[in-house]
Amino acid sequence: MNTQRDAAVVLLSGGIDSTVLLHHVVKQQNRGAVHALSFHYGQRHARELDCARVQAEAAGTTEHRIIDLRFLGPLLAPGSALVAGGAEVPDLAALTEDEIQQPPTYVPNRNMMLLSMAVAFAEAQGIHDVFYGAQAQDEYGYWDCTVVFIERINAVLALNRATPVTVHAPFVTKSKAGSVRLGLELGVDFGQTWSCYRGGESPCHTCPTCIERKNAFDACGEIDPLG
Amino acid sequence: MNTQRDAAVVLLSGGIDSTVLLHHVVKQQNRGAVHALSFHYGQRHARELDCARVQAEAAGTTEHRIIDLRFLGPLLAPGSALVAGGAEVPDLAALTEDEIQQPPTYVPNRNMMLLSMAVAFAEAQGIHDVFYGAQAQDEYGYWDCTVVFIERINAVLALNRATPVTVHAPFVTKSKAGSVRLGLELGVDFGQTWSCYRGGESPCHTCPTCIERKNAFDACGEIDPLG
Repeated sequence: MNTQRDAAVVLLSGGIDSTVLLHHVVKQQNRGAVHALSFHYGQRHARELDCARVQAEAAGTTEHRIIDLRFLGPLLAPGSALVAGGAEVPDLAALTEDEIQQPPTYVPNRNMMLLSMAVAFAEAQGIHDVFYGAQAQDEYGYWDCTVVFIERINAVLALNRATPVTVHAPFVTKSKAGSVRLGLELGVDFGQTWSCYRGGESPCHTCPTCIERKNAFDACGEIDPLG
Repeated sequence: MNTQRDAAVVLLSGGIDSTVLLHHVVKQQNRGAVHALSFHYGQRHARELDCARVQAEAAGTTEHRIIDLRFLGPLLAPGSALVAGGAEVPDLAALTEDEIQQPPTYVPNRNMMLLSMAVAFAEAQGIHDVFYGAQAQDEYGYWDCTVVFIERINAVLALNRATPVTVHAPFVTKSKAGSVRLGLELGVDFGQTWSCYRGGESPCHTCPTCIERKNAFDACGEIDPLG
């Protein structure tokens, strides 16, 4: 097996954090090759993936692959509001205390599934580094976007006897405002990123991720080009 | 989310260990429901999956699903000899010392991928227990069939704030002969299981898993119905 010590795989959703992470890895890490991977897992709309395509090209990645996981939809519904066939996306203001711990927009075990495939893809090519845009969130929480989640995933992967892959999540302790600030420095076009959980033509401004996005731009004293 | 405390998901490949495990869970664990899950990930032949279908019915499972993961083939080749498009399956006798640590028949990060999907499927239905037929192997080794691998996967899953799923691998410390012995007690028809890595009409008798299978039947003083 050939080894590509200077190459990297970046998970790219088309949201703010993974987009800024991709630009960061391509422009600031002097990698030999950067492979962007996106997943279509039955999200309610494809707008995010369109943004991922635009950003992969804008950043100058070596290749961009979109993995079609729509077969997972029926397997996961009725577990999640983010998957077609699942429950409605709730307003942040309507979440109960329990739901803030693990909200209806949580997709069962999604991040372990996506990371395990990204790691397999990396490993098959002898690539040791996978980048993941998990980010600390103030308003509500997902267990699979935490520091300890990344640490424990890496503890599993460290057992690999030939090509141990490491998952890097450099934004996991940073705020979304920090991602926006870094993206602005790197010239990221945030008009070509998508955050809203709902499938409308323009952002709804009331779902949890819309509110988080607005707070991040406000904290930077910037106007969101998506309005 | 409803919880099904007495239900279980069993990963079923159609080989000896997962087949015996399925019969064990259905017949000896008094579960309310047992869901068998098989994966088609671009194996060189579909014989294993045919056996899985037969065994799921013979055991009396609540449902049997086969998840089509063939899109993973191009993503994983040239990483593995078990996937169509990958390298040739080697004879056990031809393996070097390094290869015995992580042989060409290893599929990159396969077990983390399959377990993460089985866990997602369980979690979406409020099921807390996933059974996995990993088994201690004498002749050669896979890092993702070990006790410590299962422990670390469970350390990740324990972080889930609403439906923590546990992966159970009761055979991981047992020999394959132990699986054969238990299967005989449970009335498993081993003529409807498949182990050979190669795609022929009958087992090749020289690949690593054929040799392991023969040794297991020999240790039980039994004749393998597959010959």
